[in-house]
Amino acid sequence: MNSQFPRDLYGITGWPLSQTLSPLIHNTAFQTLGMPAVYMQWPVEPDCIAEFVSAVRTLNIRGCSVTIPHKIRIIPFLDKIGQSAQLAGAVNTIYWHEGALCGENTDVGGFLAPLNKKEISGARILLLGAGGAAHAAAAGLKSWGITDVTVTSPGNVHQFELAEKYDFIPVKWEQRYDYPAELVINSTPMGMKGKFVDENPYDFAKAPETANGMAYDLVYNPAQTLFLKQAATAGRKIISGFDMFYSQAKAQFRIWTGRDFPDCIEKVLNNALYS
Amino acid sequence: MNSQFPRDLYGITGWPLSQTLSPLIHNTAFQTLGMPAVYMQWPVEPDCIAEFVSAVRTLNIRGCSVTIPHKIRIIPFLDKIGQSAQLAGAVNTIYWHEGALCGENTDVGGFLAPLNKKEISGARILLLGAGGAAHAAAAGLKSWGITDVTVTSPGNVHQFELAEKYDFIPVKWEQRYDYPAELVINSTPMGMKGKFVDENPYDFAKAPETANGMAYDLVYNPAQTLFLKQAATAGRKIISGFDMFYSQAKAQFRIWTGRDFPDCIEKVLNNALYS
Repeated sequence: MNSQFPRDLYGITGWPLSQTLSPLIHNTAFQTLGMPAVYMQWPVEPDCIAEFVSAVRTLNIRGCSVTIPHKIRIIPFLDKIGQSAQLAGAVNTIYWHEGALCGENTDVGGFLAPLNKKEISGARILLLGAGGAAHAAAAGLKSWGITDVTVTSPGNVHQFELAEKYDFIPVKWEQRYDYPAELVINSTPMGMKGKFVDENPYDFAKAPETANGMAYDLVYNPAQTLFLKQAATAGRKIISGFDMFYSQAKAQFRIWTGRDFPDCIEKVLNNALYS
Repeated sequence: MNSQFPRDLYGITGWPLSQTLSPLIHNTAFQTLGMPAVYMQWPVEPDCIAEFVSAVRTLNIRGCSVTIPHKIRIIPFLDKIGQSAQLAGAVNTIYWHEGALCGENTDVGGFLAPLNKKEISGARILLLGAGGAAHAAAAGLKSWGITDVTVTSPGNVHQFELAEKYDFIPVKWEQRYDYPAELVINSTPMGMKGKFVDENPYDFAKAPETANGMAYDLVYNPAQTLFLKQAATAGRKIISGFDMFYSQAKAQFRIWTGRDFPDCIEKVLNNALYS
């Protein structure tokens, strides 16, 4: 390192940003590949996103991850918005292209990464939750031309807006077991490490029977949520949120550097999360 | 490094910033001391200094070196200005103190570092040049209560302003050999590596005789300028600009971190400059 100090600045902005693993994986990638770059953490209050984007321009920050609560409000301050970000109505990645500060959303591709388009295309889908992660999932499904999606949310409010935007079917939370679905997706925080860890948005014992069922939890910590455990017991194929999280970060790194994550990153992330 | 990624951001701003050695020495110091900090380069156009200070605040940049052309114009955007910066009318260091963004000038102390107050107090001093470096030197001399200083500059303009500010005696460039001086200081760029390397602001063969003469060149590259070579030949004690450059950086590091440079830094800087 002594002969090559960091020259290119990257980072993540959000608020309050206490738990992010992005610095770990991007810095490990830069160091492993011997790139003179560094990835910082910039907690920025919701009202200060204009100043943040100005700082990105003034200090020539080469790329930035964007997380809650800035994903939507940052859009007016950027020069160009990519296709996935337009579809999701949110940006999780900023980068430079031909002198323009651009926004993209790698959560969309990250959501699709562990799925197989053929397998999904015929499936009935139930989407639990209608927040930011649900919008990325919805944009991903829409980009594959899939609209046979029923959406519900515990608050019984946001599913109507999301359904209208993506041409899905909104249903009440209490009715979620009335709709048979080969693929059930959890985009709520239920099951997430912390205060929601003992919650489960969907009891697969109550699910209507389907052939070739799958369950996809966008929660990545813990790896095995109650949702996934019950789905496995019910004989469903399960997908953890780990793949989505890893894939969105990998896609950011590729946008910024044109390079793939080195092989060690998946293991580093696994260790940080689960050991 | 893998277990401790950079967390604290430092850097230098100036324009165009092509030749700075500050990243080398501060990053080497951070790494040698095992501190999770990194020092970047931020070239910022003269008109954009307000945006730069805003970026320092938004991204919580812990400290910054300030160089030409921002040393004076940055002042109105800071919360507090230290004593040396007030005296010099210029800031070369910004740092945080109790939530306030402060400006200080370590060139002033850096200029004094290789001098001995007792030795200088009785001396007649001739200051060659009246630009930014001369202001730091003048502020240093003034802070030691020394005003028996004659100042001149090749352009025959700026010495009058500087003399008025610090209560010195301004003289024309052509008259510089009329004033005997135990200490002759070069603050012009004459002798500096590049287009001025063959120039010498003062021919010691023409100097009026004095006892215990000294010559101090604020130029640090090359280590032995024509000015210093001739002074040595004339039997004067010589001081290179290296000490001032090293001392101002060391003082910045102490302001930011409360710590001294590790021993290796002087050698690292020496190697970078002269080998």
